[in-house]
Amino acid sequence: MKVFDSHAALYIDYYQLTMAQGYCLSGKAQTTAVFDYFFRENPFGNGYVVFAGLSDLLEILETYRFEDAEIEYLQSLGFKQEFLQFLRRFRFNGTIHSMREGELIFPLEPIVRVEGSLIETQIIETLLLNLLNFESLIATKASRIRFAAGNRKLYDFGLRRAQGLGGIHASKAAIIGGVDATSNVYAAYHYSLEVAGTQSHSWVQSFGDELTAFRKYAEIYPDNCILLVDTYNTLRSGLPNAIKVAKEMEARGQKLKAIRLDSGDLALLSKKARAQLDAARLNYVQIVASNQLDEILISSLLQQGAPIDGFGIGTRLLTAHNCPALQGVYKQSVIGNQPTLKFSDNYARTTLPGRKKVMRYFDANGYFDTDGIMLETEEGIDIFYHPFFTEQHRNVEEYTAKPIMFKVMESGRIVGKLPSPTESASYVSHRFVCLSPEYKRFENPQQYKVGISPSLMRLRSFLFEQMQKGSLVRK
Amino acid sequence: MKVFDSHAALYIDYYQLTMAQGYCLSGKAQTTAVFDYFFRENPFGNGYVVFAGLSDLLEILETYRFEDAEIEYLQSLGFKQEFLQFLRRFRFNGTIHSMREGELIFPLEPIVRVEGSLIETQIIETLLLNLLNFESLIATKASRIRFAAGNRKLYDFGLRRAQGLGGIHASKAAIIGGVDATSNVYAAYHYSLEVAGTQSHSWVQSFGDELTAFRKYAEIYPDNCILLVDTYNTLRSGLPNAIKVAKEMEARGQKLKAIRLDSGDLALLSKKARAQLDAARLNYVQIVASNQLDEILISSLLQQGAPIDGFGIGTRLLTAHNCPALQGVYKQSVIGNQPTLKFSDNYARTTLPGRKKVMRYFDANGYFDTDGIMLETEEGIDIFYHPFFTEQHRNVEEYTAKPIMFKVMESGRIVGKLPSPTESASYVSHRFVCLSPEYKRFENPQQYKVGISPSLMRLRSFLFEQMQKGSLVRK
Repeated sequence: MKVFDSHAALYIDYYQLTMAQGYCLSGKAQTTAVFDYFFRENPFGNGYVVFAGLSDLLEILETYRFEDAEIEYLQSLGFKQEFLQFLRRFRFNGTIHSMREGELIFPLEPIVRVEGSLIETQIIETLLLNLLNFESLIATKASRIRFAAGNRKLYDFGLRRAQGLGGIHASKAAIIGGVDATSNVYAAYHYSLEVAGTQSHSWVQSFGDELTAFRKYAEIYPDNCILLVDTYNTLRSGLPNAIKVAKEMEARGQKLKAIRLDSGDLALLSKKARAQLDAARLNYVQIVASNQLDEILISSLLQQGAPIDGFGIGTRLLTAHNCPALQGVYKQSVIGNQPTLKFSDNYARTTLPGRKKVMRYFDANGYFDTDGIMLETEEGIDIFYHPFFTEQHRNVEEYTAKPIMFKVMESGRIVGKLPSPTESASYVSHRFVCLSPEYKRFENPQQYKVGISPSLMRLRSFLFEQMQKGSLVRK
Repeated sequence: MKVFDSHAALYIDYYQLTMAQGYCLSGKAQTTAVFDYFFRENPFGNGYVVFAGLSDLLEILETYRFEDAEIEYLQSLGFKQEFLQFLRRFRFNGTIHSMREGELIFPLEPIVRVEGSLIETQIIETLLLNLLNFESLIATKASRIRFAAGNRKLYDFGLRRAQGLGGIHASKAAIIGGVDATSNVYAAYHYSLEVAGTQSHSWVQSFGDELTAFRKYAEIYPDNCILLVDTYNTLRSGLPNAIKVAKEMEARGQKLKAIRLDSGDLALLSKKARAQLDAARLNYVQIVASNQLDEILISSLLQQGAPIDGFGIGTRLLTAHNCPALQGVYKQSVIGNQPTLKFSDNYARTTLPGRKKVMRYFDANGYFDTDGIMLETEEGIDIFYHPFFTEQHRNVEEYTAKPIMFKVMESGRIVGKLPSPTESASYVSHRFVCLSPEYKRFENPQQYKVGISPSLMRLRSFLFEQMQKGSLVRK
């Protein structure tokens, strides 16, 4: 599975390279650093994010290098020989701790911790953010749609309106989040996903009349025949023709799988279609609906009792239409051996210093409702403070603590086996059961508790005070 | 320039392949067809769309083929030998007429017309829609931002929040729409774009104190030094340190290029920063601003008199944040020699039949305000009807008609030379001058007139009546 066939190293913001050259030329090539990936706000007003993109990132990092053509290009941009020599030999040899793909993750906690030389930790920033932000965004959107649809079938039909090649990772992330199959053959090929598809209006138009078009399709695809019934008129033409074909199939010992509605009032049409099908004793023929669907419309259709068995979802899934970006960031937390932070006038944007890890706390029923961020060396923490309103704290003595960050790359090599998208999807659904309903609702979900340990709080205060005294600001 | 190194043929919705096999097996491999690409609604409530994506599409089509590994994969999905043999030999040999990249385009008019065998015209649908929809969307967003920013510098910094690999085409389309330079090295390499970048907060953090960090950067990049001043405190630390470094540079005969503001109230901070810089006699040092900017915020900043010389734009540009998809469609208009249409209960979604072209009408001052859609064989049309309210019509006798669709591919070969992104960008700005201001404003822009010729109207009515009589619906 390889999506970048080449030039992955150029998938980078220009300033990463100017800074890397700067580090190189100012004697900082050996300096080490730690960076954290985290986000500050859930997208869609959701109660959680589904983490995705890690496998793609690790796979690219393991073979990350600057090829001759790329070095030549950088030379043409004016980079210096000393730095170009450095890039020629450059490999990513860093160590990465991360939550696993498919984990449910929450604002402010470090999801991924990257350690290595300052240059290597810096140089991968754009690639890391691009992949993790986008795949997590789409996996989260898909998870909401899955939640709305219950166990009905979900098909991704979005490639044509995806953001260009973004469709590749989007279709994969949609599977991680809970969609069953995709129309995107490219993604299916690279990631071993289940493919799905029906037919378009042009199929029907190409045969001049609808009945012939339906008959032909049923003849060629008797085992997987879904007929699109709205090219001319759903109830007066498409459905009667589909029923005629279903009966002809029955006579041949075959079964029409489903009809697809793609326009009009889907609640009304699905009910009338169901009635027509049932009246023809075609109770087994399913109804698939599509047309600008998302989790809100699906919830509404099901609330109205629309007898729909499967949903095709396109644009609004693959572009995460109502919030098309997860604003994840990648911030330095250690330089050399010094914990560091980015200060901000907006206190909530001050970063958490030091080499950190995250534990998750489970109650006696197996539900989790608190994550605790602590320094990497800390063990057995019982109390966590609200990250900003530090008068608030939470005691987790009666909870069971489980680690949720693991070493996934050591000195540039992947540790263990990367999960497939379907394995990650199964992890998501397994994990989803352990999160109480109040975090899953669409309207004002309960805010999940992420706290910081007393030591981490003290470290931040200490650095903060030092900075205010100006010792880190000016000389 | 090649973005897909391989497997472009798999970048397709599964149903295109099942339908293609269906056509193959039902004796329709020789049938010809015509398809139109068009959209029904401007994104962002804008008055126009900037057309982009054509060059990428044509380049891929010229070398479009199914390789052995892909054929094997399709075989594993159950496609039949006869069809796989057909795919092995498959080349795109169609002919394409299109508006040029960078053209200002409007709802309902055919932008691209694809002619060829039914199978080849069908098989490219997903690829065509994916590229044209997305690149046109981003070029349009960029054009709005350019309009708001006047002739100030615009930098694309969006790759880290782009929708995965969508960032590649997004950065290129942003240049077509009017952005000056990009941080995206991958896109710059493939499309010969100007690169841009400054430094990040971690650069400042890495040196322990801000002044040293600034000094180092100025030392290494004296000709292109932009200092990020908000890591600790913009006015009390960042700016005084930047001024100190600027003065040191002056002493060496160098000039600090700019400071960058990336947080806080950009209107207020830019004014105070300007005052501090001017008081230090650094009038030449420019101010660049970034942080969740778009055309609305830029307009607002400039209305407030913010003395900002350049804008870095990220997420909201590269994801087209407030409308992340252009809903372009690809509809069959001729099958064999028969004009055809997709009927809809919603009359506004009925398609325009036949092989069509578009002319643009210019007034005596060189402005254009009407496009006319007509059958390909028509000449010298003076009157156009509103596409739906056909009581309304428009006389264009006193206008100068100019064709805006040209043959860009003949029998699978590109006709002429593809424009570079910067050439298309220059065409956009040239064309933009000939569109009156009322179509460009953000709030309720005037609706541009796109009409249909009398013959086209009669053809549509004729097919419509035939269909209502049921002759095309049932046998």
